[in-house]
Amino acid sequence: MGRLTVRRAVLRLTPDGTTRERPDTLVAEEPLEIRVGGKPLTVTMRTPGHDVELAHGFLLTEGVLGGREDLFGARYCDSVDDQGRNTYNVLDVDLAPGVAPPDASVERNFYTTSSCGVCGKASLDAVKLKTRHSPAGDPLRIKREVLVSLPDRLREQQRVFGSTGGLHGAALFDAEGELLVAREDVGRHNAVDKILGRMVMDSAIPAAGTVLMVSGRASFELVQKAVMAGVPALAAVSAPSSLAAELAEESGMTLVGFLRGDTGNVYTGAERIEL
Amino acid sequence: MGRLTVRRAVLRLTPDGTTRERPDTLVAEEPLEIRVGGKPLTVTMRTPGHDVELAHGFLLTEGVLGGREDLFGARYCDSVDDQGRNTYNVLDVDLAPGVAPPDASVERNFYTTSSCGVCGKASLDAVKLKTRHSPAGDPLRIKREVLVSLPDRLREQQRVFGSTGGLHGAALFDAEGELLVAREDVGRHNAVDKILGRMVMDSAIPAAGTVLMVSGRASFELVQKAVMAGVPALAAVSAPSSLAAELAEESGMTLVGFLRGDTGNVYTGAERIEL
Repeated sequence: MGRLTVRRAVLRLTPDGTTRERPDTLVAEEPLEIRVGGKPLTVTMRTPGHDVELAHGFLLTEGVLGGREDLFGARYCDSVDDQGRNTYNVLDVDLAPGVAPPDASVERNFYTTSSCGVCGKASLDAVKLKTRHSPAGDPLRIKREVLVSLPDRLREQQRVFGSTGGLHGAALFDAEGELLVAREDVGRHNAVDKILGRMVMDSAIPAAGTVLMVSGRASFELVQKAVMAGVPALAAVSAPSSLAAELAEESGMTLVGFLRGDTGNVYTGAERIEL
Repeated sequence: MGRLTVRRAVLRLTPDGTTRERPDTLVAEEPLEIRVGGKPLTVTMRTPGHDVELAHGFLLTEGVLGGREDLFGARYCDSVDDQGRNTYNVLDVDLAPGVAPPDASVERNFYTTSSCGVCGKASLDAVKLKTRHSPAGDPLRIKREVLVSLPDRLREQQRVFGSTGGLHGAALFDAEGELLVAREDVGRHNAVDKILGRMVMDSAIPAAGTVLMVSGRASFELVQKAVMAGVPALAAVSAPSSLAAELAEESGMTLVGFLRGDTGNVYTGAERIEL
């Protein structure tokens, strides 16, 4: 467990048409099975490390938890590989008494609570039904110069990305641009879950007054996770999708895309940015 | 249905510290529910279009289908939104007589067939158990200059990326660099499923003698999809993960990463590249 990177030999194609063999550093990817009360819930491919946080964040953003008080504890199961060593790839989470265990078919039932068919609106409605927190009304104000500094601040935190080029990064900042927590992972959703899980463990949910900065695109899934944690602003280095912008708007969240250099696009919630 | 992009107003933060409102084009993202024989199997967030291909590719790479003969047909269900219009977001696939329907808990049971715990090796074993095709032994040979030309050829195909910056691209080429099929999607796995689904519908599985080029990173999931379709070579603009390289090696697939400009890293299967 805990191997963030793996070395292996590669054949490098060089510009002059020759090749040379050299060692390369790859980002580690391993499956993590999350169980609740001993019952398997999901398997995600992740970069090992901060697994307890990942599980907390996943359960928060799936609507199983509202905060730390809903959890009793988490531990690695005795899952061994073919040489009898613990893989540290199975994590069992115990819910606090009275907390309803998740429906094992969480994803399958995503749309069954909606009155209409499977569509963008049904996806928005499902988030509204699940979340216990809301970014709407969060009094966050952030200065333009602080906002545009966040991509560089995130990049400073991406230690493993520097050596492998293979990781998504995410970081949570306060309104002054102070770093609260940063994580890297081979999966973008995992990096965000690890951050939000840290906030759960610190009893800091809803994550009022914060800005979540991500290294890639802003998909529906990432906005959904931010909403579930009560994060009032999401900023992405790259493009948002249509449904991401719609969910941000419906949820009262500030959404900024293409934040790079000294520029960016504010899709929703511009009133939180002090120009 | 079929909206690839959506327009909305954004507030542009400009380098001189001012702002201006302008229209922006966002990539469309909508849920697609795939049913098999009327029974819901999965929901994926995708860019609308080529949905039948997406379903075919998904079922191929999940091991439900081996090829076109395993399928009877596919049609949009009568799923309506709150204004009574068909959402075209639910697709029902009929399997040919005698083809076993998928276990509804496909993902959950991913590791139950492995003798060891949840670990990288179990993930590799699961692919080996599921696949009916193998890239090993595929006689593909590709010239170095053809290989390094593929990222530009892919970019030429990325129409929607040009207008939104929000899409992953993938394209399948033959050994001469001839384009077979290219697709874009908000989800990288969907772009690949749409390509492989096209190959299923063209009775061209296993996809012998082809190279799959993807715009982003090479994850375990993407290598797995290529293996399931019998694609002998995968090339990515960005980094592979450790498990992606391991699976490529075990499967006898050629894996190239960081393919950009005139350079690249060959992780496995270098014998297929004519230098």
